Amino acid sequence: MSELISKAKKIKKATDILKTLTTKEKNHAILKISEEIEKNSEFILKENKKDVKLAEEKGLKKALIDRLELNEKRINGMIEACKTVVNLKDPVGEIYDSFLREDGLRISKVRVPIGVVGIIYESRPNVTLEATILALKSGNTVLLRGGSDAINSNKAIVKAIKEGLKKSNLPESAIEIIENTDRRLVDEMLKLNEYIDLIIPRGGKGLIDFVVKNSTVPVLETGVGICHIYVDESANIERSIKIIDNAKTQRPGTCNTVETVLIHKNISKKILPELKNVLERKSVEIRGCEKTVDIINVKNATEEDWATEYLDLILSIKIVENFNEAIEHIKKYSTGHSESILTENYFNAMKFVEQIDSAAVYVNASTRFTDGGEFGMGAEMGISTQKMHARGPVGLKELTTYKYIIFGNYNVRE
Amino acid sequence: MSELISKAKKIKKATDILKTLTTKEKNHAILKISEEIEKNSEFILKENKKDVKLAEEKGLKKALIDRLELNEKRINGMIEACKTVVNLKDPVGEIYDSFLREDGLRISKVRVPIGVVGIIYESRPNVTLEATILALKSGNTVLLRGGSDAINSNKAIVKAIKEGLKKSNLPESAIEIIENTDRRLVDEMLKLNEYIDLIIPRGGKGLIDFVVKNSTVPVLETGVGICHIYVDESANIERSIKIIDNAKTQRPGTCNTVETVLIHKNISKKILPELKNVLERKSVEIRGCEKTVDIINVKNATEEDWATEYLDLILSIKIVENFNEAIEHIKKYSTGHSESILTENYFNAMKFVEQIDSAAVYVNASTRFTDGGEFGMGAEMGISTQKMHARGPVGLKELTTYKYIIFGNYNVRE
Repeated sequence: MSELISKAKKIKKATDILKTLTTKEKNHAILKISEEIEKNSEFILKENKKDVKLAEEKGLKKALIDRLELNEKRINGMIEACKTVVNLKDPVGEIYDSFLREDGLRISKVRVPIGVVGIIYESRPNVTLEATILALKSGNTVLLRGGSDAINSNKAIVKAIKEGLKKSNLPESAIEIIENTDRRLVDEMLKLNEYIDLIIPRGGKGLIDFVVKNSTVPVLETGVGICHIYVDESANIERSIKIIDNAKTQRPGTCNTVETVLIHKNISKKILPELKNVLERKSVEIRGCEKTVDIINVKNATEEDWATEYLDLILSIKIVENFNEAIEHIKKYSTGHSESILTENYFNAMKFVEQIDSAAVYVNASTRFTDGGEFGMGAEMGISTQKMHARGPVGLKELTTYKYIIFGNYNVRE
Repeated sequence: MSELISKAKKIKKATDILKTLTTKEKNHAILKISEEIEKNSEFILKENKKDVKLAEEKGLKKALIDRLELNEKRINGMIEACKTVVNLKDPVGEIYDSFLREDGLRISKVRVPIGVVGIIYESRPNVTLEATILALKSGNTVLLRGGSDAINSNKAIVKAIKEGLKKSNLPESAIEIIENTDRRLVDEMLKLNEYIDLIIPRGGKGLIDFVVKNSTVPVLETGVGICHIYVDESANIERSIKIIDNAKTQRPGTCNTVETVLIHKNISKKILPELKNVLERKSVEIRGCEKTVDIINVKNATEEDWATEYLDLILSIKIVENFNEAIEHIKKYSTGHSESILTENYFNAMKFVEQIDSAAVYVNASTRFTDGGEFGMGAEMGISTQKMHARGPVGLKELTTYKYIIFGNYNVRE
């Protein structure tokens, strides 16, 4: 039996125990895991150095090596994450609809874990810990497939997690990592409908597209965000600039960062020069449509710019004739993540939230708020940009499903 | 441009209007549709006769022809269905979570339509109408692909629906049917992620498996039910027989009908002879495990029986050593639809609802209750046997998703 199948079988079996754990048992296990991460931090850092060395030898980009590298601060971040998740409300068991029929049948809709969650991710080893504890807290088991560049770090972290599970008398197979990093195993994993209930890809557009196209297991699509801000004719110039600045520069590498700003033509001459000043002071490169470059001296945007998630200090700007042109542009290029209108016109605000079909639609706020923490969920597995099952931040609740439990008195259907 | 792509584009465009309709507008349209079905019933019946004639010439099975055939009663059923759906509560716009942050940001989670729903079904022409009005009432548009055997009937029904939409000033492209019944178009449809948000296959296991394996568009898997009843040692014999009778014979062709009964060995000799009498009086064929055939004179069940959804007056029976063997059998063969335990033992009842991972889990009731109507939803698109998005009866709510709407006052993230 292949490593993949044998681990998938073990995990599937462990779901029977995981799904019936009390909150106390789950929290205890997560704290034990954090203790083991702490105890084994030297070993984890040593294994991580191996990965970093190999990555440097392979000539990986600096940004990638930065994501791969662990240090004491990042280990502490992992330990902190455990504490955060312990403090989150356990969603399992919540009854969110219930009624008594005339014939005495008691029907209730009860929140339950999904089962086996498969996570396919790139080379950020902290995901190994963070994804696992979110899945455990919501009563799920996890099959991990991390990037080959982080394999030594991931194995070391999984070893610590399993030690923590063992010390809390939970099945160590509640989590498994595929150690064989052959890409073909990903294909195989995407077809394991018998053992895996849900696959969450975490990484760049290439990885996500590959998973969506090839998985027969249901997928929770997360992460790619080409977010827009539309500055309507009636917006306050000064405050709009503050929002664009915040949405672009507060943390440019995140998916909720704005990538394209659309500006109503009647306000463009007033806002653009000052916007350019503010953004250039923060080293943002602006790429403008033809009308924009007539007003300010910036690079020309190409068709490709409108369809690009920069994840960088680059912003594309387009001047639109009217509200409708802004809506049409967003509909064409949005990835369904977050969009915002800046306006003081009531009807445009309402039309925007009605017409724009994204996970988060804002009026007069920065797109940077689309985040599990900001939305009060405490922690998240990513931001869903699909419409089925969960949309927006994927917290503990979004990692559950429901079942109907019906108590009867030997009832038959008439 | 192919018929498929050109219709998909038109439908996608119509979603902009459909998603913003008021309940009044949607109800008005559904009533207009019912009027047009009534007005055009002669034409629909004439077109249906063509299909039936062709099916007879092709030598289709009687059961299939029965599903295909329309008559005045079935047309009236369609008209009644319109009235039922008009009376259902519109789920769109429901705010199911909302809070005011310390910084004044108002975040709410609002129920919205999914968008374009693709329905792939076999040869029951009434599905054409019923699926359409459920989708419309929940603000969605529909792309239909019905079985080739019903194409004339379906086209006639769609013509009436479009007439009804036109008379209510709604876009006729809120619904389209693929007229080219080449099977390859199904493959193409399953890859239209750009235009279709969700695909619901309605039909037999073959169709559903094909869609799940080949679709890159998210799928809502419905329908296949290998439902189990476990008669525990402590169950009341007489009342248990009534439940098994009801679950098997009340409407044997439905997915919530019981297919396998598991019986605790200590009660088997007492229940089997009388159960056989009752079921045989209703022409049910029993297939028993080895221990069963030692007690009553019935056919032998094979391994295949445990994995078969009969949809017919056939029941397989297995005697189990204990509670755990029953659980293990269900876990192995269940399709995740509905399972019931008959018991008077409190802890077994609770263990059963905890351990069994199906859409509906019953204690002391017939599995026949798993139904949108019985669960108070009024009408349904099918019974979901998957865990993501929706589980159990798929009513109007299950045909929606949500988005976050956030009203601010030029808020930026700190």
